[in-house]
Amino acid sequence: MSQVTAATRSTIPAKNAGPEPVYDDDSQAGVDVAALGAALLGRWADVRRTARELAGRDAVHRIEGQSMAEHRKRVFEQMHYLVEHKAVHRVFPKSLGGGEDHGGNIAGFEELVIADPSLQIKAGVQWGLFGAAVLHLGTEEHHEKWLPGIMNLEIPGCFAMTETGHGSDVASIGTTATFDPDADEFIVNTPFRAAWKEYIGNAAIDGLAAVVFAHLITQGIDHGVHAFYVPLRNGEKEFLPGIGGEDDGLKGGLNGIDNGRLHFTNVRIPRANLLNRYGDVDEHGTYASPIASPGRRFFTMLGTLVQGRVSLDGAAVAATKVGMKIAIHYASERRQFNASSDTAEEVILDYQRHQRRLLPRLATTYAASFAHEELLQKFDDVFSGAHDSDEDREDLETLAAAFKSLSTWHALDTLRECREACGGAGFMAENRLTSLRADLDVYATFEGDNTVLLQLVAKRLLADYAKEFKNVDFGMMARFVAEQATELTLHRTGLRRAVQTFADSGDERRSAVALRDEDAQRSLLTDRVETMVGNLAGELKVAAKMPKEQAAQLFNSQQNELIETAVAHAELLQWEAFTRGLDTIKDAGTHEVLTRLRDLFGLCLIERNLAWYLMNGRLSNQRARTLGDYINRLLARLRPHAVDLVDAFGYEQQHLRAPIASGAEKERQDEAMAYQRKERASGNAAMDEKILIERVKSAGNKISKKAPRKKA
Amino acid sequence: MSQVTAATRSTIPAKNAGPEPVYDDDSQAGVDVAALGAALLGRWADVRRTARELAGRDAVHRIEGQSMAEHRKRVFEQMHYLVEHKAVHRVFPKSLGGGEDHGGNIAGFEELVIADPSLQIKAGVQWGLFGAAVLHLGTEEHHEKWLPGIMNLEIPGCFAMTETGHGSDVASIGTTATFDPDADEFIVNTPFRAAWKEYIGNAAIDGLAAVVFAHLITQGIDHGVHAFYVPLRNGEKEFLPGIGGEDDGLKGGLNGIDNGRLHFTNVRIPRANLLNRYGDVDEHGTYASPIASPGRRFFTMLGTLVQGRVSLDGAAVAATKVGMKIAIHYASERRQFNASSDTAEEVILDYQRHQRRLLPRLATTYAASFAHEELLQKFDDVFSGAHDSDEDREDLETLAAAFKSLSTWHALDTLRECREACGGAGFMAENRLTSLRADLDVYATFEGDNTVLLQLVAKRLLADYAKEFKNVDFGMMARFVAEQATELTLHRTGLRRAVQTFADSGDERRSAVALRDEDAQRSLLTDRVETMVGNLAGELKVAAKMPKEQAAQLFNSQQNELIETAVAHAELLQWEAFTRGLDTIKDAGTHEVLTRLRDLFGLCLIERNLAWYLMNGRLSNQRARTLGDYINRLLARLRPHAVDLVDAFGYEQQHLRAPIASGAEKERQDEAMAYQRKERASGNAAMDEKILIERVKSAGNKISKKAPRKKA
Repeated sequence: MSQVTAATRSTIPAKNAGPEPVYDDDSQAGVDVAALGAALLGRWADVRRTARELAGRDAVHRIEGQSMAEHRKRVFEQMHYLVEHKAVHRVFPKSLGGGEDHGGNIAGFEELVIADPSLQIKAGVQWGLFGAAVLHLGTEEHHEKWLPGIMNLEIPGCFAMTETGHGSDVASIGTTATFDPDADEFIVNTPFRAAWKEYIGNAAIDGLAAVVFAHLITQGIDHGVHAFYVPLRNGEKEFLPGIGGEDDGLKGGLNGIDNGRLHFTNVRIPRANLLNRYGDVDEHGTYASPIASPGRRFFTMLGTLVQGRVSLDGAAVAATKVGMKIAIHYASERRQFNASSDTAEEVILDYQRHQRRLLPRLATTYAASFAHEELLQKFDDVFSGAHDSDEDREDLETLAAAFKSLSTWHALDTLRECREACGGAGFMAENRLTSLRADLDVYATFEGDNTVLLQLVAKRLLADYAKEFKNVDFGMMARFVAEQATELTLHRTGLRRAVQTFADSGDERRSAVALRDEDAQRSLLTDRVETMVGNLAGELKVAAKMPKEQAAQLFNSQQNELIETAVAHAELLQWEAFTRGLDTIKDAGTHEVLTRLRDLFGLCLIERNLAWYLMNGRLSNQRARTLGDYINRLLARLRPHAVDLVDAFGYEQQHLRAPIASGAEKERQDEAMAYQRKERASGNAAMDEKILIERVKSAGNKISKKAPRKKA
Repeated sequence: MSQVTAATRSTIPAKNAGPEPVYDDDSQAGVDVAALGAALLGRWADVRRTARELAGRDAVHRIEGQSMAEHRKRVFEQMHYLVEHKAVHRVFPKSLGGGEDHGGNIAGFEELVIADPSLQIKAGVQWGLFGAAVLHLGTEEHHEKWLPGIMNLEIPGCFAMTETGHGSDVASIGTTATFDPDADEFIVNTPFRAAWKEYIGNAAIDGLAAVVFAHLITQGIDHGVHAFYVPLRNGEKEFLPGIGGEDDGLKGGLNGIDNGRLHFTNVRIPRANLLNRYGDVDEHGTYASPIASPGRRFFTMLGTLVQGRVSLDGAAVAATKVGMKIAIHYASERRQFNASSDTAEEVILDYQRHQRRLLPRLATTYAASFAHEELLQKFDDVFSGAHDSDEDREDLETLAAAFKSLSTWHALDTLRECREACGGAGFMAENRLTSLRADLDVYATFEGDNTVLLQLVAKRLLADYAKEFKNVDFGMMARFVAEQATELTLHRTGLRRAVQTFADSGDERRSAVALRDEDAQRSLLTDRVETMVGNLAGELKVAAKMPKEQAAQLFNSQQNELIETAVAHAELLQWEAFTRGLDTIKDAGTHEVLTRLRDLFGLCLIERNLAWYLMNGRLSNQRARTLGDYINRLLARLRPHAVDLVDAFGYEQQHLRAPIASGAEKERQDEAMAYQRKERASGNAAMDEKILIERVKSAGNKISKKAPRKKA
């Protein structure tokens, strides 16, 4: 709380009474679609253009309605197509034919979601997880030995980390790799059913090898989870001795990927198959690591795999853009109910509720897009070595956790709303929305369950807030969150302190128009996060002195608030990224429209948490009461630009592949209206019975105006 | 507003300072699962038991992963199975072998969703729409001629109302049926592409006939939409002359149903094929109807088909119960992260966030369940003729619109949350959650788009509020809403006036515990609806004097608020139904638990709209700030009863068919824990490197306690 009161409070000048303009000049607003599109493509624009060109080809498209077997086969063939067209080697060493381009690699990879999310994720398993584990956790010998086959798909492989019993809590997996110095081998073993590797892509059919995560045990000591390269199948695709598995079968989506289970019964692998960058065992069984602390070592190893979360964030944003373009194009053509005229029906995007459903989600999509671009740049800075301090890595991991959680949920919410906004047409598989939603469903829980990731973000906020949280055992919070925090060597605030705090004196004449001010939005959003963090810290600081069980109960009693705080922080970061993104827009008209969209994003965040602002005295009742109406007027001012704003995403018909967004609806509407006009003009049209009744009534009235009439 | 101020304000006695109990006595709380289960089965308990026994049989189950063609074939065969097992004739005339049991018919029908939603909806098309149209819109001759074949499935048929161009706005469909007196025939015609019948179940393959909705034109007058019986295909399943169509192909769900498109090129049908209960044409072409007003006639005809919405409400509740039972059983067995102990992990339902995700949705499921039972009784009262006034029918339609909207959205939200709460396991098709969600997706927009239905509810609220809204042309609001209102002969408030209004003086010692009071919840919820309706009426009353276009703009500017008002009203009705449902529970312990659950439902409604209560001075900041924490404590008090509460739904393993809810998870956890216990006891377990480090450190400390140590 001290931080908040210490901050300088500034007040916003009161407006005079009278009608308040939402924005002064509509004539200045207009989107330069090409320029905005270029800005959205970001630093890796060329890679994205190349990737989209490829993603637009029939060869890589999903064919709806294929059986699981057909779909798997097709995606596996498409994987070879990606190799042939050099779509997936951007990250690998130049010496092996790669490009050592970390950011570009992810940018290109995430565009694959537009072709088929199954292809994106299967490619992610092969090159982003299996390949990246060998790249980042292995050393040169491993690179030379396996990366060529991984790159050209001679070795389709698995990333075998998750077990039936443990997903996001990787430290608790049960698989062991025990060193046998006599044979100079590790013995990989699955001790019980819950330790079977589970949901592993490529495991059911295609995988010839796997990077298996297991507890490294040597000389009676468990050195924690390490990665081992384990051959799985022979050339006939039969399991090698000691290895078994099952097919996961049908899933809620992503059925082009052969997920499966794996188990190991004392499988022997050479000592050299330990991916030994962060921990090694010599021929005597002596363990050594460049990182002394086991906890820190574990998180360093896992941290090299952050690209999975970064790319899911980008893929979620891309899929959301496709959904938004489909729904907004349809809404701009579909007519339903004649409200203001007897003959013409309204375009449904003109309905306020339809705007309320789609435009705030469009604003969030822009925020998520700008935020992702910044995340990707951060990722590239770290992995290229340009800015690779512990602090940078820590920031990267926090940002990836925050943005991946928000954007994957946003994608599901948006695709659902778009589907409903398109009515029955939205439910047809040919219009993509249901299929994309089904495939992206699991993005919310894989590569780190969003609920767990947000606790990681919250932990970081608390650690930044006060050093007593560095060493607290966080009990109910995810173990890896706690351990990670324990190992942090650097702590700084992830939060920019609010320079000023929005003060609301409750002047009756004041309305939400003041919130159009960028600083006002920033102050309100920042103040909320800081206050929530401060309050949480106050509640939790006694935990350090408590017995473990009691501390765990205390943390659990605040778990919901912890997660809400992380969400508030992540939303603030999105808002800041959107605001910085505005600076990159040079065209005045585009800047004006995008500023409105940013305001819509900010105001909807405030509206969603309005109770908090009221309870905590940050907004007056008077101003709060005008917010909803102000947002509604803002929607109306944005509506004329909605189609331009989705066109700027740059996805074309070969990416949308949705008949309802192809102009067909407008053709049908035009044909129907032309028919009706012709009928009316011909004089042959049947007369509506209601008009007949009106005429009879009015004729009757003329004859006997005061005669009592029976009620119909 | 006058209604609110006129109401007597009562205040709730202030509590003394000090810790506030959530509920005084936990020892009294406990669920009698069998008794609660019986209460939930409701008036048609026997029918439900019979239907569930049938729905538990393998023969009617969905087989995941079937191709669309296989699934369609299987469902069609299952339809015959339903006929053979007398599962679908409860509503038809006794003279034809039916039971004339309207409520029981729906109760049995909606349980089919548990077997396969495709089967439920395909059965709904055949007997609930096609058959019901012949039954309710046709007369005795039609019944005798067609109902036997409909009942025994000799005539699979379609309900051809929706067109590509118009769904919820039925009055605007383009298909015409023009009477030709010379031939004594109607000529059914599709004038343009947008008038093709669309999304029609049974149209792609199975349908031999259809009830086609078309504008009845005779003697140059269009008498509005009527229903016609039109043969579609011959015995070889080929289209008859003049009839054409297309397969809708793959959908986001419900792929066991052969939805398709139909079009008619001057198809001639006998005059007698007009389903003539509410409008007839004699051999000279003279039109006659027992209902003089065309608008009222139209809504009377559509009103006979309200059972579609009633049954979707019930099916959505049933599917939600299955999802909740799966997720809560899994959450009560799954362990993840060891927070309070070094060896045992927590059951995830003990995590506060997990409770926050699942238990409020469980409370809503109970509310929706009680509300549905009341709706079904109302439906039976009307259709059995027991209480069949215009007012009863009007209430029924409003309730059906309100509850169908809320429960179908609730089902989608809950199935999504359950899927995420089960992590990767939730994404596996075998665990039902993704499949149920995909199938139920379209429930939100078919049989009346929820957004449109809620405007109907809002219109009713306004019409009840003040008579000037009776005759307003509602512009942007759905046309049928407006026309329906115009034709109302009776107006009464759908809202029970709040006897008292909750008054909050803001005493600091007061906390949310006061909101545990039933009357306080009722007052707050009712007051909000009344105030919103009053405010809307104030904004909109000038519309009556405006030109059509201007009035339309005014209505559009309030459309979002209209829908929010309807939602608030519908939620209040659910709360009232839940509260009345409590009275049926005789067991004291069950009553206590269910009261807490009702409170959770009410308090979560208040929390969701907390900003409104604050802005409008209904709750003090002090009390509002304690609400979240109060709810969290309530969750903890309900958690021990969560499994009982889902078990009371009465669905067994043959209904769930989800391996994760079968006890398998607990078996795996037990096995893993037993293994680890044995390892520890054997003394052979590897020592954790961290413990080794601690020991070395502490040994080092003992030797040279003050020696400077390097940071790790």
